[in-house]
Amino acid sequence: MNKLYYGVAYYDEYMPVERLENDIAMMLDAGINVVRIAESTWSTLEPAEGQYNFHHIDRVLDAMHQAGIAVIIGTPTYAIPAWLARKYPEIMVTTPEGQQKYGRRQIMDIVNPDFLHHAENIIRVLLSHVKDHPAIIGYQVDNETKHYDNCGPEMKQKFVASMQEQFANIDEMNQAFGLNYWSNRIDDWQDFPPPEATINASLGCAFSRFQRQCVTQYLAWQAALVNEYRKPHQFVTQNFDFEWRGYSFGVQPRVDHFAAARAMTVASVDIYHPSQEKLTGREIAFGGAIARGMKHGQNYYVMETQAQGFAQWVPFPGQLRLQAFSHLAHGATLLSYWHWHSIHNSFETYWKGLLSHDFAPNPTYTEAKTIGADFARLSPRLMDLKIENDVAILINNEAMDALNWFKPEGVSTNLYNDIFRQFHDALYEENISADIISDLPADSGRYKLLIVPALYAASDDLLGRINAFVEGGGRALIGFKSGFSDENVQVRHGAQPGILHECCGVTYNQFVLPHDTQLISERLELDAQSSRVSIWMELLKPQGAQVLARYDHPVWGEYAAITEHDFGRGKAMYIGFLPEISLIKQLVARLTTGLPLSARMSRQPFPLIVRGGVNSAGQRVRYYLNYSENELTVEDAQQGEELLSGTSLHGQPLVLAPWGVAIVAG
Amino acid sequence: MNKLYYGVAYYDEYMPVERLENDIAMMLDAGINVVRIAESTWSTLEPAEGQYNFHHIDRVLDAMHQAGIAVIIGTPTYAIPAWLARKYPEIMVTTPEGQQKYGRRQIMDIVNPDFLHHAENIIRVLLSHVKDHPAIIGYQVDNETKHYDNCGPEMKQKFVASMQEQFANIDEMNQAFGLNYWSNRIDDWQDFPPPEATINASLGCAFSRFQRQCVTQYLAWQAALVNEYRKPHQFVTQNFDFEWRGYSFGVQPRVDHFAAARAMTVASVDIYHPSQEKLTGREIAFGGAIARGMKHGQNYYVMETQAQGFAQWVPFPGQLRLQAFSHLAHGATLLSYWHWHSIHNSFETYWKGLLSHDFAPNPTYTEAKTIGADFARLSPRLMDLKIENDVAILINNEAMDALNWFKPEGVSTNLYNDIFRQFHDALYEENISADIISDLPADSGRYKLLIVPALYAASDDLLGRINAFVEGGGRALIGFKSGFSDENVQVRHGAQPGILHECCGVTYNQFVLPHDTQLISERLELDAQSSRVSIWMELLKPQGAQVLARYDHPVWGEYAAITEHDFGRGKAMYIGFLPEISLIKQLVARLTTGLPLSARMSRQPFPLIVRGGVNSAGQRVRYYLNYSENELTVEDAQQGEELLSGTSLHGQPLVLAPWGVAIVAG
Amino acid sequence: MNKLYYGVAYYDEYMPVERLENDIAMMLDAGINVVRIAESTWSTLEPAEGQYNFHHIDRVLDAMHQAGIAVIIGTPTYAIPAWLARKYPEIMVTTPEGQQKYGRRQIMDIVNPDFLHHAENIIRVLLSHVKDHPAIIGYQVDNETKHYDNCGPEMKQKFVASMQEQFANIDEMNQAFGLNYWSNRIDDWQDFPPPEATINASLGCAFSRFQRQCVTQYLAWQAALVNEYRKPHQFVTQNFDFEWRGYSFGVQPRVDHFAAARAMTVASVDIYHPSQEKLTGREIAFGGAIARGMKHGQNYYVMETQAQGFAQWVPFPGQLRLQAFSHLAHGATLLSYWHWHSIHNSFETYWKGLLSHDFAPNPTYTEAKTIGADFARLSPRLMDLKIENDVAILINNEAMDALNWFKPEGVSTNLYNDIFRQFHDALYEENISADIISDLPADSGRYKLLIVPALYAASDDLLGRINAFVEGGGRALIGFKSGFSDENVQVRHGAQPGILHECCGVTYNQFVLPHDTQLISERLELDAQSSRVSIWMELLKPQGAQVLARYDHPVWGEYAAITEHDFGRGKAMYIGFLPEISLIKQLVARLTTGLPLSARMSRQPFPLIVRGGVNSAGQRVRYYLNYSENELTVEDAQQGEELLSGTSLHGQPLVLAPWGVAIVAG
Repeated sequence: MNKLYYGVAYYDEYMPVERLENDIAMMLDAGINVVRIAESTWSTLEPAEGQYNFHHIDRVLDAMHQAGIAVIIGTPTYAIPAWLARKYPEIMVTTPEGQQKYGRRQIMDIVNPDFLHHAENIIRVLLSHVKDHPAIIGYQVDNETKHYDNCGPEMKQKFVASMQEQFANIDEMNQAFGLNYWSNRIDDWQDFPPPEATINASLGCAFSRFQRQCVTQYLAWQAALVNEYRKPHQFVTQNFDFEWRGYSFGVQPRVDHFAAARAMTVASVDIYHPSQEKLTGREIAFGGAIARGMKHGQNYYVMETQAQGFAQWVPFPGQLRLQAFSHLAHGATLLSYWHWHSIHNSFETYWKGLLSHDFAPNPTYTEAKTIGADFARLSPRLMDLKIENDVAILINNEAMDALNWFKPEGVSTNLYNDIFRQFHDALYEENISADIISDLPADSGRYKLLIVPALYAASDDLLGRINAFVEGGGRALIGFKSGFSDENVQVRHGAQPGILHECCGVTYNQFVLPHDTQLISERLELDAQSSRVSIWMELLKPQGAQVLARYDHPVWGEYAAITEHDFGRGKAMYIGFLPEISLIKQLVARLTTGLPLSARMSRQPFPLIVRGGVNSAGQRVRYYLNYSENELTVEDAQQGEELLSGTSLHGQPLVLAPWGVAIVAG
Repeated sequence: MNKLYYGVAYYDEYMPVERLENDIAMMLDAGINVVRIAESTWSTLEPAEGQYNFHHIDRVLDAMHQAGIAVIIGTPTYAIPAWLARKYPEIMVTTPEGQQKYGRRQIMDIVNPDFLHHAENIIRVLLSHVKDHPAIIGYQVDNETKHYDNCGPEMKQKFVASMQEQFANIDEMNQAFGLNYWSNRIDDWQDFPPPEATINASLGCAFSRFQRQCVTQYLAWQAALVNEYRKPHQFVTQNFDFEWRGYSFGVQPRVDHFAAARAMTVASVDIYHPSQEKLTGREIAFGGAIARGMKHGQNYYVMETQAQGFAQWVPFPGQLRLQAFSHLAHGATLLSYWHWHSIHNSFETYWKGLLSHDFAPNPTYTEAKTIGADFARLSPRLMDLKIENDVAILINNEAMDALNWFKPEGVSTNLYNDIFRQFHDALYEENISADIISDLPADSGRYKLLIVPALYAASDDLLGRINAFVEGGGRALIGFKSGFSDENVQVRHGAQPGILHECCGVTYNQFVLPHDTQLISERLELDAQSSRVSIWMELLKPQGAQVLARYDHPVWGEYAAITEHDFGRGKAMYIGFLPEISLIKQLVARLTTGLPLSARMSRQPFPLIVRGGVNSAGQRVRYYLNYSENELTVEDAQQGEELLSGTSLHGQPLVLAPWGVAIVAG
Repeated sequence: MNKLYYGVAYYDEYMPVERLENDIAMMLDAGINVVRIAESTWSTLEPAEGQYNFHHIDRVLDAMHQAGIAVIIGTPTYAIPAWLARKYPEIMVTTPEGQQKYGRRQIMDIVNPDFLHHAENIIRVLLSHVKDHPAIIGYQVDNETKHYDNCGPEMKQKFVASMQEQFANIDEMNQAFGLNYWSNRIDDWQDFPPPEATINASLGCAFSRFQRQCVTQYLAWQAALVNEYRKPHQFVTQNFDFEWRGYSFGVQPRVDHFAAARAMTVASVDIYHPSQEKLTGREIAFGGAIARGMKHGQNYYVMETQAQGFAQWVPFPGQLRLQAFSHLAHGATLLSYWHWHSIHNSFETYWKGLLSHDFAPNPTYTEAKTIGADFARLSPRLMDLKIENDVAILINNEAMDALNWFKPEGVSTNLYNDIFRQFHDALYEENISADIISDLPADSGRYKLLIVPALYAASDDLLGRINAFVEGGGRALIGFKSGFSDENVQVRHGAQPGILHECCGVTYNQFVLPHDTQLISERLELDAQSSRVSIWMELLKPQGAQVLARYDHPVWGEYAAITEHDFGRGKAMYIGFLPEISLIKQLVARLTTGLPLSARMSRQPFPLIVRGGVNSAGQRVRYYLNYSENELTVEDAQQGEELLSGTSLHGQPLVLAPWGVAIVAG
C-alpha cells in the first residue's frame, strides 16, 4: 500500500434512513479514505438459500469508488442467517454448556461440513460478483474468528484422529498424558471420552491446542478461497482479537495468532482499550507488537478500534489523536474505527461509532478530522515504518493453557496474561520497545534481551535454545514456573526449573504461597511496593547463581527468591514469584547494565512514551506521546523536524500538550 | 362492599391437627372477618384426574359462614398436582434454562392447551360446587400469575403469529427491529429463531411484551370463567405482585398490571416490605398507588401482606397497627395476612403467619386484635375513601424492558425500578401523594405535576402528549434516557432526548459514566450528598433551557447536567443522570414553586407520613403515620375528630407515639 | 495389628520412569512400613472388558513383601475406565445438573446394575488373584465413597419403594411430609415427582437420607465381597472423608459414617487440614473423634493425610511430626500419607506427596524419617491407646440436612457444620476431649456432659432420652433450633424447643435475626467479643429456668438469650443463638462447675493441646502438643517418662519447642 489508510467499518445494511451520500461527504471531510464492508451481513446478501441481493454492496462500492474511498470486503461468514440455522441445526456449535441456540454471532461449528459448504458458496458468490471492482484494495476473511469452545461430535472425531497421528500407538499417548491416573487410561481409540470433560491437563491442553489448529485451518481455507479471486495488489487479512476483559487485555487463548497469520498477506488486529483517565497506551503497544510479530516485523492494520465506544470510553479532547498516532508509532499503516455510525437497534447500540445515533458532528468526529488531515499530509513520511527491536518477550499458547489449568487458590482470571502483562508493561513504562515472539529461533542473534514469563509447558528443544541463547551472550529474565512441564504438560521429573536450571544456576523442589510476603535483598533497592511477593513462591536453592533477593519469612527465609547467573557469555536472572512492575524495571536495568539496547527509546519513563523506527526515506522517526493530562517536557528528544507543526527541533526542549503528540523525523 | 375487611389466608388442608373450631374462635377474637381459601390446593381438591374432594372447602365454608366470616374462593390453578405433570409432561414450562421439573408452584406453561383444559375443568367443578354458598363474597383467579419466562414451542408459535399480525410484511419487522445487524434478518416466518436467545433488543423486548400479553389473556380467560358462576354482588380479582427483592420492590416486569386488571372488578395486590428498623411505608405507598392506578382510582385489596413473616420481619410493637392503617390511608379496603398459621412442613416454614407453629397467642396476634376491633368500629368512617391526586408518575413496562436491556457497567439489578423508586421515594418523603399511571391520556388536565423516570422506549405519540401536557401548563420532571428510543426500541436518529427535546429545550449526542462525579450549580443548594451523579451522565447542551447544574469535571464541565425550560404555559426540567433523593426533592420544590398541589399532604416530611382522601360522608380523612421509633409531633394536623381515640382536635398539637397512628376526620 | 503403621499411598501405575527399587529404599529409610495400592486403578487392571493386567500389582506386592513393607489393597472401583462408560452409558451418574460426562472419578451411579455387575467382577478378579499374598494386611473398599448427588431413574425408583415401605399408606406420607402444601400431594405412587426438584423439605431430606442409605448399602456389599476372600487377620475398611472446604471441615453430609462403618472391621478417615501459620490440630481432633465414634471407641486409621500437599500446606519444620503424633494422640494406629510421590500429569499435580516431582529428598521427607524411626521405636508403648471420654457432642445427618434446608438470609455455607465446629472447637481449645456420637443411647451413663448443637430434626424418642439424660444427673448444653422439628422435618406444633422445653425450662414462639446485637448479663462475664449474637435470635421465655443473658436490644430486650435450668438431678443450658467460641467456653465452665471431668486433659488452654489415654500396659499416656511457633511451658504435665527423649519427668517443667511434641507415660 502506498499510503496511510484512515477508515471506518461501514454498514449501509444497518441504516434506519438513507444516508450514503451524506455519510460519504462527512467521511471525506474527515479524511476517511477506506471503509470495511460486508463482514457480518450474510443474511442481507443471501436472504434465502440460493437467493442473492447485492444491493447494499454494489451501491456502497460504486459510491465509495466515486468518492475516492477504498473498500475492504469482508467475507460475511462470522454471523450466520436464521434460515441456515433452521435448515441445518447441527451447524450450531456445541460447547461444554451444550448446543448453542441461534441469536449471537460466532456460534457456528467451524468444522461442520454443512457450514463449510454454505460458507464456501456465499464467499464464492460474493467474490465472483465484486472481484473486478476497482474500489477494492483487499479482503478480510471472517472476523475475530475463534473456535467458540467447540466440542461437537465433528470436532471430537477430528481430535481423536489427530491424536492417532501424533502418537505411534495408544500407549504412547497414555504415557505422555499420564492417563493411568484416576483410571483415565484409554486402550481403544473408540473408547476416547469427551475431551471437554477431561480432568487430565495433558489431554485437556492437547484438545485446546487442536481447537486452535482448527481455527488456523479454517482461516487458511477461507484465505485460499479468496486467493482464487483477489488481484495481486489486493491483500487478504484476518482481523485478530485479544483476550477480552471488557477491552483487549492480552494474548488470545483461543487462536494461535502466529500460526493463523501465515495464510494472510498482512496481519490485522482489533485493539480496544480503557480511555479517559485510564488511557495509557499499553494495549496499543502489546497489540501492535503481537501484530508485528505475526508477520515477522511487517507493518500491520488496526482493523478495529474505538471512536466513541462505550460511555466509559468517550475520549477526552486530544485522546483520539494520541491513540491514532500511537498506533502508527508501533507500526500500523491502517487505522479503522469500529464504526462509522452508532447502531440504532439490537446489541451494540451503546458501542458507539465516530458518529452518534443522530449522525450529527460531535467532538469526537471533529477531532477525527484533524487526524485524517494529518494522515493525508504526512503519509509519505510516516508510511512503511521499519521497527527492529533487540528485545523480545517469549509467549506461547501452550504455556498459557497449561499454566491456567493449575491456578493457585484465589486466582480467577487468565493468570498467564496477568503475568505477561506485568512483564510487558514494565518494559513499556521504561520505553523499551519489545518484539513479542512465540518461539525462539536457534539463530536468535538479533535479540540481546529475552523476557520469558511463565513458560510453563515447553519442549526440551525450546528450553535448550533458551540455554543456548544465554550461553551465546544473551541476557534472559526468566519467570516462575518456566520449564516446569514438557510440551505434553507432563511435569519434568528432573530438577526444576526443568532444563533451564542450567542457564539459571538454580534449582528447587518445593514451593509455597505468599501471604503478604516481602523480599529482603542486599543487592537490590527495594521499597514496600517493589518487594511484594505475589501468587507463588518457589523455594530456590542456588547452584552457582548469585542470590539477588530472599524471602523475608521466619521459615522460608533461607531460600532465594531471585537469582542471577553468568552462563557462557550471557547472563540469566530467575524470579521465583510474580514480581511487581517496579521490581521488573529494576531487574531489567540491572540485567542490561552496560548493554546498549537499540530498543530503549528513551531514558525518560511513562507517562512519556517514545516509539518509532525508520521510514522509507531512511529517516529515524520518533513519536513522542504524552499519556497524561499534564503538559510534559521531553528531555532527550531527537533533533529533526517536528512533522505535525512543521518546525525544526534543534536543542530547544520539546513540550507536549496534555494527551499531546509530536513526531520528529531526522 | 359495605365494610372494611380484615382477613387471613386460611389453609385447612395444611393443618397437622384438627384446628378449625379453635382457629375460628381466635379469628373472631381478633376481628378477622374474611378468609381466602382454596388457592393452591388443586391436589387436595382433585387428588386424581376426575376425582374430586370438597372436604376441606365445604367444612371451612360452612364453619366460616356460621361464624359470620366471609370467604374468598381462589381458583387453585397456580400450583398443579403431580398427576397432571406426569400425565401431560409438556405442561411443565420451558424457560431459557430448559424445561422445568415438577416441584415448585408456578412452573406450568399457561398457554399449553392441556393445562388450559384441566385448569378450566377444575375451575368449573369447584365453582359449580360452591357458587351458591352464602359465605362467598368474591373470587380470586389464580395467584401472583406471571409468564414464568415461558419460551416453549406454544409460546414461540403464538409470538410469531403476533408478529405476523403486527407487521404488514416481514420486511417491516426487519426494519423496525434492525434485524440486518449481525445477520439476524428473517425473510421467511418459518425461519424465526428462538426469541429467548436473541441478542436483538427490539425483538427481545417484543417477545417480553408478548409474554405479558399472554398473562393478560390467561387472567381474562379465568375471569370470564368465574363470571359464568359469580353473583352480581361478588367480586372477581387477581392478586398481583411486584418486582421481588426479598420484598415488594417495584414495578412487576412480567405482568402488565394495567392491562391485566381490566378483566377484574377490583384490583388486589401483595405487599411485603422490610420491617423492624427498616419499616418506612414506602412499599405500602407505591404498591397502593399502582393498585389504585390499575382500576382508575378505585379502592383496592391488599390480598397478602406479612403478619410475622420472616425472622427479619417480626414487627416491633405498634408496627402491625401502623402498617394496617397505612394500607387504609392509601385506599385499601381489605387487608389480609398471609397467613393465619405458620406452616409446619415444606418450603415456607419460616414465612410465618399471624400465629406461630404452636397456634398459641403471641405478641403479633395480640396486636392484631386491636386492629380488628378498630376496623370494625371505624368501618363506616373509613370505607370508600376517595383519593384524587394532581401529581402522577408515568411508568411503562416497555420502557423498563428496553432500559434494562442496556445496563451500564456494574449494574446487576432491575435498573428501571432502581430509578422509579428513587423518584417515587422522594415524593413519598415529601408527603406528596402521587398516582402511578402507565400512559398519559391526551386529556390529562387533572395532573399539575408529571414525573417521567427513564421513559426509554416510547412512541412518538406518547412523547407528543408529554410535550402537549407541558405546553398546556403542566410541569414535568423528566429523567435521563427518556425519549431515547421508539416503541420498537429503535434509537431515534434525531436529536435526543427524542421528541422531548421540544419541551425540555435541551439536546445531547454524547454520554459518559460518572466516577465520583459531583454537580456544581449557582441555582441549586447542593451538598456532598445531593450533588452526587450516579449511573449515567448525558452531556447536555441547552437549546433554550436554563442550566440548573453542570458536572464538576475537568473535561465534561462545559456540559449541563440539569436544565429547566419554560414551554408554552408549562415548564419542564430535564436531568441527565440518576439524581439522589435529596436532589429530586429540591427539584420538585423548585418546579412547583407557587403551584398549590392538592396532593401535598403536609409540609412536614418523613418520618411523618400523611395520607388520606374523602370518605363516603364527604369528610376529609387524614391519616398521620409515624414511621419512627421516636414520639413525633404533627405540626399542621387538620382540625377534626381523631377517630382512634375519639377525641376532638382543635388547635392542640397532635402527638404520635413511636410507630404510632392517628386518624383525623373533619 | 501389633504395631503402629506409617505409610503412603503408592501408585506404580502413575510413574513416568522406573522407580520401584529406589522408592522402596527411600521408604525403608523413612520407616514406611505400609503402602496402600490399587485404589483407583481399574483401567490399568482391566484395560478392556474381561482382559486383566496384574503387572503393577504383582510387582509391587512382591517387592514390598521382600522389603518387609505391608500392603493394603484398595478395590479399584471409585474411578471407572473409559470403556465401561462408553459401553454402558447409563452408568454415568445423573445429578440435578444432568447426567455427568466421563472424566472425573466418582461419577458413576452406584445403584446401577451394570455398574454393580462390573464392579463385582473386577473386585472378584483382583481378590482371587492377590488373596494369598503374604504382604497384604487388609483391604480398603472403594474410596471416599458418596452418593454423588445421584437422582437417576434407578435411585428414584428405589427411593419410592423405600417410601412405600416406610409408610403404611400414601396418605401417611402426605401427612408426615405436609405434601398438601402447594398442591404437592401424591395420591398414586406412580405419580411420584422427581425428588431432586422438590421444594418440600420433608421429602427432600427423606431423599437425602435415602441416598446416604444407598452408600451404606453399597459399602456393605463391597465389604461382603471382600469378606469372601480376606483372611481372619486381615481388616476391611473404607476411607471416609469429611465435608470439604478446601480441607476437612466437618461432618460429611453425603454419608452416614456411623451406619456405613458397621460393615467394616476398622474405620479409616481422610484428614486434610490447613497448615503453616494456620495449623491448629482442630481437624485432627474432630476427624479422630468421629472415626473413634464410628466403631464405638475403637482405634482407627488415618488412611490419607497430607505430606507436602498444596503449596499452602507445605509444613513448617516440626509440623509434620506434630501432626503425626497428634493423630496418635487421638487414637489413630495407622497414619498414611497421600501420597508417596507427586503426580506428573492430570489433575492433582499440585497435591504433592512426600516426594516432589523430582523424587529427591526434601525437607518434608527428611522430617518424615524421624517420625518413622520414632513410630518403630515407640510402637509397643503407643499402640492400642484406649480413650474413654465423659463428654460427648451429639451430631446427626438428619438434623444437618433439615437445618441447612432453611438457612437464614446471607448464609451460604453448610450452616450445621459452622455450628458444630463452633461447639467442638471451644471444647478443643479448653482441652476437653469429646466423643462425637450420632445417637444418645438410653443407657448413656458414661457421659457427664452432653453438647447438643442445632439438633433441628429429631424424633420424640431422642428428645425424650436427652430429657432423661439430664434428669438422671447429666449436664447438657443445648443450642438454638434444637428440637424444632420431628424426624420427618415437620415442625412441632407444641411449645419450642420441642420436647426439650422440659429439661431446659424455657419456651419461645418467635425468633428474629440479630444485627450487631450484643448480650447483657449479670451472671456471665462478657466482653464485646463473647457477647456477640450471630445467625439467629430466639425470643426465649423462661418457664422455670434462670436467665443467664438477655439481648441488648430496645425491643427484644425483655427476652432471654441464654438460660440455665435444674432438671431432676441434672442441669441444662439453652442458647437461643449462635454463640462465640469464647462464650461457649465460659458456659461450659459454668455448667461443669464442681464436676470433675476425666475428659478435661489440662487446665491450660490452646495453643497447648493435651490428649491421650491408656496404653496396653495400663499406663496413662499423655501427648503434649504445642500448636504455636513459640516455645511453650506445660504447667501441669503428668509425671513419668518422656518417651521421645527417654528422660524422666519429675517435677521439672516440660518445655515444648515451637510446633513441638512430648509424650509422657506414667
